[in-house]
Amino acid sequence: MTDMKMSAFFTHTQKEAPKDETAQNAIFLARAGYIDKLAAGVYSYLPLGLRVLKKIENIIREEMNALGAEELLLPAFHPKENWETTGRWRTMDDLYKVTDAGGREFALGPTHEEIIVPLAKKFISSYKDLPKALYQIQDKFRMELRAKSGLLRGREFIMKDLYSFHTDDEKEFDGYYARVKEAYKNIFRRAGIGEKTYLTYASGGSFSKYSHEFQVLADAGEDTIYLCEKCGVAVNEEIIAEQSACPECGAAKETLRKERAIEVGNIFSLKTKFTEPFGLFYKDKEGAEKLVHMGCYGIGLGRLMGAIVELGADGKGLVWPKEVAPFDTHLLAVGNSAAVNTEAESVYAELSAAGRETLFDDRDTSAGIKFADAELLGVPRIIVVSEKTIAAETVEVKDRKSGEVKMVPRKDLLVS
Amino acid sequence: MTDMKMSAFFTHTQKEAPKDETAQNAIFLARAGYIDKLAAGVYSYLPLGLRVLKKIENIIREEMNALGAEELLLPAFHPKENWETTGRWRTMDDLYKVTDAGGREFALGPTHEEIIVPLAKKFISSYKDLPKALYQIQDKFRMELRAKSGLLRGREFIMKDLYSFHTDDEKEFDGYYARVKEAYKNIFRRAGIGEKTYLTYASGGSFSKYSHEFQVLADAGEDTIYLCEKCGVAVNEEIIAEQSACPECGAAKETLRKERAIEVGNIFSLKTKFTEPFGLFYKDKEGAEKLVHMGCYGIGLGRLMGAIVELGADGKGLVWPKEVAPFDTHLLAVGNSAAVNTEAESVYAELSAAGRETLFDDRDTSAGIKFADAELLGVPRIIVVSEKTIAAETVEVKDRKSGEVKMVPRKDLLVS
Repeated sequence: MTDMKMSAFFTHTQKEAPKDETAQNAIFLARAGYIDKLAAGVYSYLPLGLRVLKKIENIIREEMNALGAEELLLPAFHPKENWETTGRWRTMDDLYKVTDAGGREFALGPTHEEIIVPLAKKFISSYKDLPKALYQIQDKFRMELRAKSGLLRGREFIMKDLYSFHTDDEKEFDGYYARVKEAYKNIFRRAGIGEKTYLTYASGGSFSKYSHEFQVLADAGEDTIYLCEKCGVAVNEEIIAEQSACPECGAAKETLRKERAIEVGNIFSLKTKFTEPFGLFYKDKEGAEKLVHMGCYGIGLGRLMGAIVELGADGKGLVWPKEVAPFDTHLLAVGNSAAVNTEAESVYAELSAAGRETLFDDRDTSAGIKFADAELLGVPRIIVVSEKTIAAETVEVKDRKSGEVKMVPRKDLLVS
Repeated sequence: MTDMKMSAFFTHTQKEAPKDETAQNAIFLARAGYIDKLAAGVYSYLPLGLRVLKKIENIIREEMNALGAEELLLPAFHPKENWETTGRWRTMDDLYKVTDAGGREFALGPTHEEIIVPLAKKFISSYKDLPKALYQIQDKFRMELRAKSGLLRGREFIMKDLYSFHTDDEKEFDGYYARVKEAYKNIFRRAGIGEKTYLTYASGGSFSKYSHEFQVLADAGEDTIYLCEKCGVAVNEEIIAEQSACPECGAAKETLRKERAIEVGNIFSLKTKFTEPFGLFYKDKEGAEKLVHMGCYGIGLGRLMGAIVELGADGKGLVWPKEVAPFDTHLLAVGNSAAVNTEAESVYAELSAAGRETLFDDRDTSAGIKFADAELLGVPRIIVVSEKTIAAETVEVKDRKSGEVKMVPRKDLLVS
C-alpha cells in the first residue's frame, strides 16, 4: 500500500469522543479518524480504517488459501425462494427483506448457506468432487436491535465465510475441521490477539453436540465464558448448565473461571442440515446417492478489528499489533525548520524506498499535537526527526506499545 | 494470486448455455464457470470470475492512487434522512428501500453522494482542505426492471466511485477533471478495450452543459452514440438533437457515424448540486463562506468485465486481454502418460517459480476436452506438453487470440 503524508490527509483527529458512542473501540477509532458512524451498527471505513481492514483481510485470505479453499464472491441480494427452502424466511427474525418493483421479495444475506448449497449442486455430484471448500470476504446484513458496541455488532458488516463440503466419512470431516481450527489460531495470532483467544465449546444446534467459538477475553465482551486454565479451552455460558466438567480435559466444573469475552470466530459442523432441503447429493464409490455433509466457519472482520482495539488500546489511544497496523512507521518532523523538513523528507524517502510503509507527519503544527496524534493513531513505531536528532546524527525511535525510546544512529535507520 | 490445478477446481465448463441467458457475455462467462446467475441482474463471481474482477480492481486502484485519491469504504445501508435532504428519496424510482424492526427506513445505496457529502463536512472547512479526492470500490443496488444483459446491467453491482471536492476556482476543477479523463483512458487501455473506447458528450443535467461518458463500440450495447472520426470523440444520442456539429472539433453533424455502444464509465461536474443541500461550505482566503464544488466519476467493474467479453470473445469462447486475464498461462498435459505428467509438473513448477500465474490442466481427460476448455476459458497463452513435445525437447505455445502456434525449445520456456 502507498505511503502517506499527513498534510494531504482527508481526515484529522478529534479531541472529543462522538456524543453517541459508548464503546471504547468506536470512541478511539472515530477520534483517530479510522471510522465514521452513519447509523447504529453502520460504519464507514475511512482511509486509515480501510488500511487496517485490508491487512486483516490479507491475513485471513492467506490462511484460507493455505487450507486449499477457493475464493468466490456471492451476492448480498437473495431470492426469497432460497430462504423458503430452508424455512429461515420465516424463522430468522433478523432478516432484512426488500420488495422489488414487480412485488418479488428478496432477503439481504446475513449468511450464505441458502446461496452456496444450490450453487454447489451445480458442480458437485460424485465422491470424486469431494472434499471442496469455498470462501468469500463479503458484506452482510442483520437486523440488530441493539447495535451499541461499535464495530463489535453491526447491521452491515464484512465477514469471511468459509463453507466446506464432504462425503459422510466422519474421519475426513474431523480432519478438515481440525485444520480449520489451526488456521483460525494462526489468524488470531497474526492479528495480535492469539494469547487471549480461547477455543470455546458452544451449542451445536440440533445436528451436533457442540460447535466451537473463538472467544477473546475483554471487559467489553457481550459473551460470558468459563475458562479452563488446565487445558486452555473454554465453555460458553449458554451450555455451562449442561456440563459437569470441562468437556476437553475433564477438569472439575468448579475450577472453571468466569470471564467476559468477545466472539471473534465460530466454526460449525452442519452435517446435512442445509444439503438436505436443497437435495445436494453425491454418488459414493458404490454408486449410492448420499447427502453431502458440510461445515461452515465465520470471522467478522470489523468485529475482529474492534476486538483488537479493545485489547490493545491504552489511555493515550490505539496500539496496533504489527501485522494489522495501517503503517509500519509514523515519522514525525518536530520543529518545522528548513533543516528538520529536509532531513525528515530524506528519512521518509529512505523508509519508503526500503518498503517500510510510512505515515509522515509533515504538517506545519506543534510538536505537542504531533506526539499526541501519534499516540492516538497507534502506529507501532514512531520515528522523530528534530534539531536535536540532526545535531547528534541520530533519529529517535519510540515503541508505541512499551513507550521505550532509543536514539539510533542515522546511518542505522533501516536496521532499527 | 495462487496458481491452480484444474483437477482440484470447484467449477467445470458447461457445453450448453444457460436457458435464461441471451447476452453473449453471460453465456460465455457462465459456460466457462466464471459467473453464476442467482436472479436477473444478480450474479455470483465464481473463483475464475473473481480473479478477473480483482485484476480489474487492481488496475482501477492503481490509477486512482496515481491521481492522489484516498480509498475508503462506505456502507450500502443508508439512512432515509440523507436521501430526503437531496430530495432523491422521492425522485429516484430505482431506489431499493428497507424497513428496520423499529420502523425506521433505509435505502440501499445506488450511489454515494448522500453519504460522502455529510462525511466530507466533518473534515473540510477551509480552502486549505481543498482539493480532496476520495474513492471506493463497493457494492451498489439499483432496482432494474430489465436486467437481461448479463453483467452489463445489474441490480447488485460493484462500482468504483470517485468524488472530488474543490473550491470555486473553475480552472483548478477543469485541470483535475482533465486528469481523471486521462486516468480513465489508462484504465480502459490496460483493460484491453482502449482502441474501441470513446470519450462521449452526454447530458450534463441541470448544472453543467455536458457530462462525459466513456463508450465502447459493441453490438450488444444499449446506448447509441454518434462518433466523430475526425477528432475521435462521440455524442450520446440523448443530446444529438441539440447539436449542430461535433462539440469537440466542429465537424459537420452529417459526418458523425451512428454506432451501438456500452457505457463503461462516466464523469460529471456536479458543481454545488449536492454540497448545497448538505451545507458543505469552505472558508476562502478572505474568510468568506462558499459552497464546495464537486465532481463524481464512476466505473462499473462487472459491466467493464462484461464489455471486455463482448469485445473479445470469438466463436470458441473467451479471449482475455493480458492485464485482466485470470491467469498468464494455461498449461495442458496432453496424453496422460507418466512421462507427460512428470514433464508437465516440471513445467508447472518452473512457471510458478518464475511468478507466471498458471492454470494447470492436470485432469485425467481427453486432449479434445482440454483444448476445447482452454479455448473457452480464454487464458492468453496456452502451453501444451505431450509425448511429441517431450521427444522434440520443446513445448508448444499457442496464442489464444491469434491462434498462432510455435514450438519453443524447452530450455527457453521462460523467455517464450
